[in-house]
Amino acid sequence: MDTYIRVSLPAVCFVWQIAMVVLFGVFIRYNEESDAHWPEYKKKQNITSDAENDFYYRYPSFQDVHVMIFVGFGFLMTFLKRYSFGGVGFNFLIAAFGLQWALLMQGWFHSLDYNTGKIYIGIENLINADFCCAGCLIAYGALLGKVSPVQLLVVTLFGITLFAVEEYIILNLLHCRDAGGSMVIHAFGGYYGLAISWVLYRQNLNQSKHLQGSVYHSDVFAMIGTLFLWMFWPSFNSAIANHGDGQHRAAINTYVALASSVLTAVAVSSLSHRTGKLDMVHIQNATLAGGVAMGASAEFMITPYGALIVGFCCGIISTFGFVVVTPFLERKLKLQDTCGIHNLHAVPGMLGGFISAIVAAAATESVYSKEGLVSTLGLEGKFANRSPGTQGGYQAAGTCVAIAFGLVGGAIVGFILKIPIWGDPADDNCFDDEVYWEVPEDEETIHPVLEYNNHMTHKQQDM
Amino acid sequence: MDTYIRVSLPAVCFVWQIAMVVLFGVFIRYNEESDAHWPEYKKKQNITSDAENDFYYRYPSFQDVHVMIFVGFGFLMTFLKRYSFGGVGFNFLIAAFGLQWALLMQGWFHSLDYNTGKIYIGIENLINADFCCAGCLIAYGALLGKVSPVQLLVVTLFGITLFAVEEYIILNLLHCRDAGGSMVIHAFGGYYGLAISWVLYRQNLNQSKHLQGSVYHSDVFAMIGTLFLWMFWPSFNSAIANHGDGQHRAAINTYVALASSVLTAVAVSSLSHRTGKLDMVHIQNATLAGGVAMGASAEFMITPYGALIVGFCCGIISTFGFVVVTPFLERKLKLQDTCGIHNLHAVPGMLGGFISAIVAAAATESVYSKEGLVSTLGLEGKFANRSPGTQGGYQAAGTCVAIAFGLVGGAIVGFILKIPIWGDPADDNCFDDEVYWEVPEDEETIHPVLEYNNHMTHKQQDM
Amino acid sequence: MDTYIRVSLPAVCFVWQIAMVVLFGVFIRYNEESDAHWPEYKKKQNITSDAENDFYYRYPSFQDVHVMIFVGFGFLMTFLKRYSFGGVGFNFLIAAFGLQWALLMQGWFHSLDYNTGKIYIGIENLINADFCCAGCLIAYGALLGKVSPVQLLVVTLFGITLFAVEEYIILNLLHCRDAGGSMVIHAFGGYYGLAISWVLYRQNLNQSKHLQGSVYHSDVFAMIGTLFLWMFWPSFNSAIANHGDGQHRAAINTYVALASSVLTAVAVSSLSHRTGKLDMVHIQNATLAGGVAMGASAEFMITPYGALIVGFCCGIISTFGFVVVTPFLERKLKLQDTCGIHNLHAVPGMLGGFISAIVAAAATESVYSKEGLVSTLGLEGKFANRSPGTQGGYQAAGTCVAIAFGLVGGAIVGFILKIPIWGDPADDNCFDDEVYWEVPEDEETIHPVLEYNNHMTHKQQDM
Repeated sequence: MDTYIRVSLPAVCFVWQIAMVVLFGVFIRYNEESDAHWPEYKKKQNITSDAENDFYYRYPSFQDVHVMIFVGFGFLMTFLKRYSFGGVGFNFLIAAFGLQWALLMQGWFHSLDYNTGKIYIGIENLINADFCCAGCLIAYGALLGKVSPVQLLVVTLFGITLFAVEEYIILNLLHCRDAGGSMVIHAFGGYYGLAISWVLYRQNLNQSKHLQGSVYHSDVFAMIGTLFLWMFWPSFNSAIANHGDGQHRAAINTYVALASSVLTAVAVSSLSHRTGKLDMVHIQNATLAGGVAMGASAEFMITPYGALIVGFCCGIISTFGFVVVTPFLERKLKLQDTCGIHNLHAVPGMLGGFISAIVAAAATESVYSKEGLVSTLGLEGKFANRSPGTQGGYQAAGTCVAIAFGLVGGAIVGFILKIPIWGDPADDNCFDDEVYWEVPEDEETIHPVLEYNNHMTHKQQDM
Repeated sequence: MDTYIRVSLPAVCFVWQIAMVVLFGVFIRYNEESDAHWPEYKKKQNITSDAENDFYYRYPSFQDVHVMIFVGFGFLMTFLKRYSFGGVGFNFLIAAFGLQWALLMQGWFHSLDYNTGKIYIGIENLINADFCCAGCLIAYGALLGKVSPVQLLVVTLFGITLFAVEEYIILNLLHCRDAGGSMVIHAFGGYYGLAISWVLYRQNLNQSKHLQGSVYHSDVFAMIGTLFLWMFWPSFNSAIANHGDGQHRAAINTYVALASSVLTAVAVSSLSHRTGKLDMVHIQNATLAGGVAMGASAEFMITPYGALIVGFCCGIISTFGFVVVTPFLERKLKLQDTCGIHNLHAVPGMLGGFISAIVAAAATESVYSKEGLVSTLGLEGKFANRSPGTQGGYQAAGTCVAIAFGLVGGAIVGFILKIPIWGDPADDNCFDDEVYWEVPEDEETIHPVLEYNNHMTHKQQDM
Repeated sequence: MDTYIRVSLPAVCFVWQIAMVVLFGVFIRYNEESDAHWPEYKKKQNITSDAENDFYYRYPSFQDVHVMIFVGFGFLMTFLKRYSFGGVGFNFLIAAFGLQWALLMQGWFHSLDYNTGKIYIGIENLINADFCCAGCLIAYGALLGKVSPVQLLVVTLFGITLFAVEEYIILNLLHCRDAGGSMVIHAFGGYYGLAISWVLYRQNLNQSKHLQGSVYHSDVFAMIGTLFLWMFWPSFNSAIANHGDGQHRAAINTYVALASSVLTAVAVSSLSHRTGKLDMVHIQNATLAGGVAMGASAEFMITPYGALIVGFCCGIISTFGFVVVTPFLERKLKLQDTCGIHNLHAVPGMLGGFISAIVAAAATESVYSKEGLVSTLGLEGKFANRSPGTQGGYQAAGTCVAIAFGLVGGAIVGFILKIPIWGDPADDNCFDDEVYWEVPEDEETIHPVLEYNNHMTHKQQDM
């Protein structure tokens, strides 16, 4: 296989970035809260304090989400012994590439002013752009180590596009509620990555088997990713929730659901080993399942114990997935899923969607108050006549749309990636940073025995 | 020793988590700021802006505290060469387990509504739950590498319980002020851990001496923990301080105290080495002493130079503790303290309590203003007649209560842990992740010489 | 060379810290927002909500900046294979030392009340103190591995002093706008470090050439620094911007500029390698150039596509600098620049200053609104008659002042550092933590072959 990317990678980056400059120039402007006309706007709207600028409601959450995207996902993918550069570095590339396209795509669908033809952006758009990238980074988890950076840019380009479309259908047309993106981010991203990986199945991947595991320190690096994801997940699920009780409740629900996941992930991990030892893969991943599953119902009055139950079940299901389902999928379905996104994103995301359907359908005015029910379920405007039960049905439908988009879109993108022009690695070169990175020469710390053997040979000859 | 935990660990996790679901179901509800009735409540209370929801005052600090608990404490404990998984992983388990129990215990003592029998939670409860876990994580510092995860869950269960009781006595009955928890968190947690460790003394711990040190990269990992603790300590000490000047002043005081600690810790570390070399253990720990000691008086008008003096002294005392006191305690008192919590938490926490007594006693109306004195020292309601001098006396008494709870509670828990059913490691198995974790096989990078010897033996035989 | 620092380092730390206590005692007090008189002040000023306390506008950004200073810069400098302790540890020391002096120096210039002779501090002073340290940490980047900690304290002492003076000239006398410090922080810090490094040129530095590179895991550690800098740069550039639209816009501009830098840095990095492989040095550094260059015009109405263009160009220029300019400077100009601050700070900072001149000069009332123009360009008080064009001229002049201060100040400090009393390392001892740190004995993991050889010798003798 030819992994020469000296033409394709710079070409894609430059062409793309120039296109972004042009499109931003044509379309993107500051919105009324980030424009210098804000003092005038404030007066006109009778806003008395700068603290009412949405920036102050959302910026702390935005930064937490930003950390999740770049450090959280990035370091979670450093666990392989010789693919840490690719894990954190390509994650960085995908997200920086994707967020610009996301600002445009989501802008066209959600923030376009038809009078001026411009997209007006503020802090909420940045959060949504980061969310959009999360979908592609999840997909990267299934492909980690097996694709070239050029392929990843293709995955991202299509991924962001598909995301914006399915998000529009789910949030605007079906009018689902999905504050933390169980469906639009996790279910979509998960199935998108799995479908791509399934199309790109590599028969002889065991040729690079010696590089598929972790080493001691790479597992500790991965824990940085896990913990930043875990800690900031309450911000992820509350970042674009309603001001006031919406953000507050979303954070609480996610906080307790995640705590519950940790306990059951540890329990199942211990159960699955002969003498009860824990497996780092489970601790790094399954502990997060509660956050994924709480996404769609984060804002709802699911009650703290409801959130605990969600975390409880998803911690078990996710760990079980790593122990049983992933090996099964690989053997039977020919599905290679490097990071196990099936267990952390696809399934918990899908479950999160269905949970939100149940919770929405069970909503009553006595629990939410009249005003609270309207604002939490979004039953306003042309959706004012929708009952909670109907809303529940739409939540379920939205989940199916997300999965369908992921599977079909992923399959198509997978076939595009099979065209042999993208510089992807050979089967025996997978999971190896050497292919796309200048790696410092410290091989001796990794294979000291080989080193010794080489040395012995020389020594013997000298003797 | 039998380190089989395949039954006990999952059993404890499952039983506990189910108990949490039930108890949360019975007791825990959203408070008025996180409930969907918030729009109604706002109108009733004449609140004009969502920005007045406590969420926006405290959420950024909460997330900083959250990072300290999981990444700060977790990575600080990765410094051992072969116990990084246990350091960061069990820290994760303890905190996720503890925060649920803390929400209940603290809720019963502080947020229970006697009319409905419910605990109503909001962002401040989450911060307090994290604080409560900090006490147990400090205790873990003394035990690191010498106990099983099941024992740690026992330590946490009793630790949280004791914490809630002593906190109730100190903050409610004695009505002490302790915004950053010098007494209730650090002094209590420190002496609790030391007492447990003292009871669990291991005669032959030097059998695992080869694993008690750090390696180069594990020390760098530990610096991640140190720095996140150091940077976010101003948030820790200001997280539950009064809105407005209280949070503002607590952050400033802690910021300058910590800076001062760094300088004196470096100075004493250099002084304690023959040619002036610095010791990573001191930099990782003693630089934080100023934050611990500023906890109880963070909100007070201690003045910036007062805070500098606190940091100055504690940096010296803490480093001196690592150089002289810890070895002495181990030799003479049979007290094994893996992370040296005696020097970072127990002593600076105690000092912080007494400092707060002095600062409170010296408070005057001219410095604080009439209203400021009342709100800062909490001299309201049935404590309205207390003088600053009396308040100072109570601050000192509170510190003693925290220490007493730590020592007595720790001794009792220590004896419980001696029952031989918890799967703790043998003396020659301490500080080794192999016991409780599936560790990737990269032994050759750690013991290449042994590897070489094995190899030689085979080679020789071949020759 | 004598690297004995057991007297000098503790002496400097103690003397300095005591001086700080005294000076803080004489000069530094809480300002009206952090003083216990705040409730009174609030009433007097008719402030209705604690949310108007500047603490709530700036504290989240402050903490992000704080992370950049300590983890961002600190971990970025851990990339060397055997100087990670020095990278992160001395960074910690410099910043903790510098921020105290910065509070005083900046306080005398900016926050001194001439009636009382006191400096009144609040959250904005803490942010500025952190900013001030950033200048010195940038300079440290050029010196990394070649100087003693005592020399670094000298660099910091003079650096902070020079910073406060040039900042006063640029921001107050010339009345430039520089929210993110392109000129006052990056251009100044960059040229300051380069000038020092140029004076301290080491003829025989190649004697420690084997330690000048990275190893696999040290590169991953450095990515922690890169990512925290990258993620939080929007907070850096918006931290002291105007409330409301100013902070909002600064964050958006920086966010998109940084994304653009990543793409072009990757493209040029790939182009510069024979088969298109990426170089970690470029990814760790050049991806940040857009943030540096956006500093001075972060608050301006540069438009999102303008910000993209800035990031686009600076990503290219910075990567090109690493590939071509740094080696050239070292060969021809005798300028050794360990971290390549020339490419990341000096040049992008200078460009940022000139870009701000152009953007300011192009400002119009129709784009900014009347009130917006006044507040964004600061054309108030005695500068009310300044036109945008004139302001542009001053922006350019300010950039030149920053560079001049850096170069001249750096040269002088360089000569001071040549006095042979500071305990700096010999040429063959550079980039080695062994000199100033007690390093754990795990040499075998780094040089297993040497270890093996030693072993062989013994074995042979036994045979």
